[in-house]
Amino acid sequence: MTHQQQISLTTKGHGDMHDLTGQVAAVVDASGIKAGVVNVFNVGSTAAVGAIEFEPGLAHDLPAILDTLIPPGRNYGHEQAWHDGNGHSHLQATVLGPSLTAPIVDGKLLLGTWQQIFTWNATCADGGERSS
Amino acid sequence: MTHQQQISLTTKGHGDMHDLTGQVAAVVDASGIKAGVVNVFNVGSTAAVGAIEFEPGLAHDLPAILDTLIPPGRNYGHEQAWHDGNGHSHLQATVLGPSLTAPIVDGKLLLGTWQQIFTWNATCADGGERSS
Amino acid sequence: MTHQQQISLTTKGHGDMHDLTGQVAAVVDASGIKAGVVNVFNVGSTAAVGAIEFEPGLAHDLPAILDTLIPPGRNYGHEQAWHDGNGHSHLQATVLGPSLTAPIVDGKLLLGTWQQIFTWNATCADGGERSS
Repeated sequence: MTHQQQISLTTKGHGDMHDLTGQVAAVVDASGIKAGVVNVFNVGSTAAVGAIEFEPGLAHDLPAILDTLIPPGRNYGHEQAWHDGNGHSHLQATVLGPSLTAPIVDGKLLLGTWQQIFTWNATCADGGERSS
Repeated sequence: MTHQQQISLTTKGHGDMHDLTGQVAAVVDASGIKAGVVNVFNVGSTAAVGAIEFEPGLAHDLPAILDTLIPPGRNYGHEQAWHDGNGHSHLQATVLGPSLTAPIVDGKLLLGTWQQIFTWNATCADGGERSS
Repeated sequence: MTHQQQISLTTKGHGDMHDLTGQVAAVVDASGIKAGVVNVFNVGSTAAVGAIEFEPGLAHDLPAILDTLIPPGRNYGHEQAWHDGNGHSHLQATVLGPSLTAPIVDGKLLLGTWQQIFTWNATCADGGERSS
């Protein structure tokens, strides 16, 4: 038994974090599936999906540490081809990964009390639609 | 057909690595599933699950490189809100990711000869139960 | 309903990137599955699977940033035990992760227009078969 549903949201640009837990839990409820897994997948190459304790501190810290480790810059090979300011965005998204697969137990999404599903957008304002 | 089982273990604090391969393989055997996938998911936001060649060198190297890239510190936004010493733990766990999905082929967990499933705990001693 | 298929390819050594999208899409087509997920899993501990906009710039940038963050070197615990030059390869592969799980919708692999499935090989030339 398979149930599929699309979640759409509007983001504010590079580093924007959203707590998707409620929406994913609602999809799980709507599915009627009692035992199985839910796969949350981001369509597009400059955003990511993962798990975190979703509180304002970490919602600030995660984009910040990603920008420290894989900084914005114009020296990426991607920039030299596309000039869209999104080289670091793509690389950060690839390292975080586009999806999360989590258990459904007793008809409910199983997460820890302080564990939420987030989506994180990496597209820079000047990236336009080409890379998203 | 779905089979679900909980694996519990005690960890020694930040950076503690465990080889879960035997326990996951036993769950796969118990399931009776001949072809499919197994999803290993960590409930909680300061531990991770992944794949590695589980030998003492890498079991030391992985926590060490994570502490180099995302170092302990009190300047994280998470620290300023919670003061639990776990800011870097959460961020490291999010980057590694909470789960692994691997194939079941001919009734057996499919891994490479030098490829094991590990869990890694990131909770610091002073983190207490709030963040785990 | 489950369908499983092996994809084999030859790599050129550390940092070699391949676009697997066409082969994965063909497996999805062959499966006849109309709604579900596909799990692409790398057997072995020095390669990874993920999602990226597969273009020459990023195919250069991803291995380069991984070598910056987790550089080659002989000081890893893994090196001191095995002397195979693969310490950083294993660590990079573990951080990227060995697998990707993506949706199958209306009988087709669902990806963004500029989102492809890649495999990346981390084995160094002197690593031989032991670690792959």
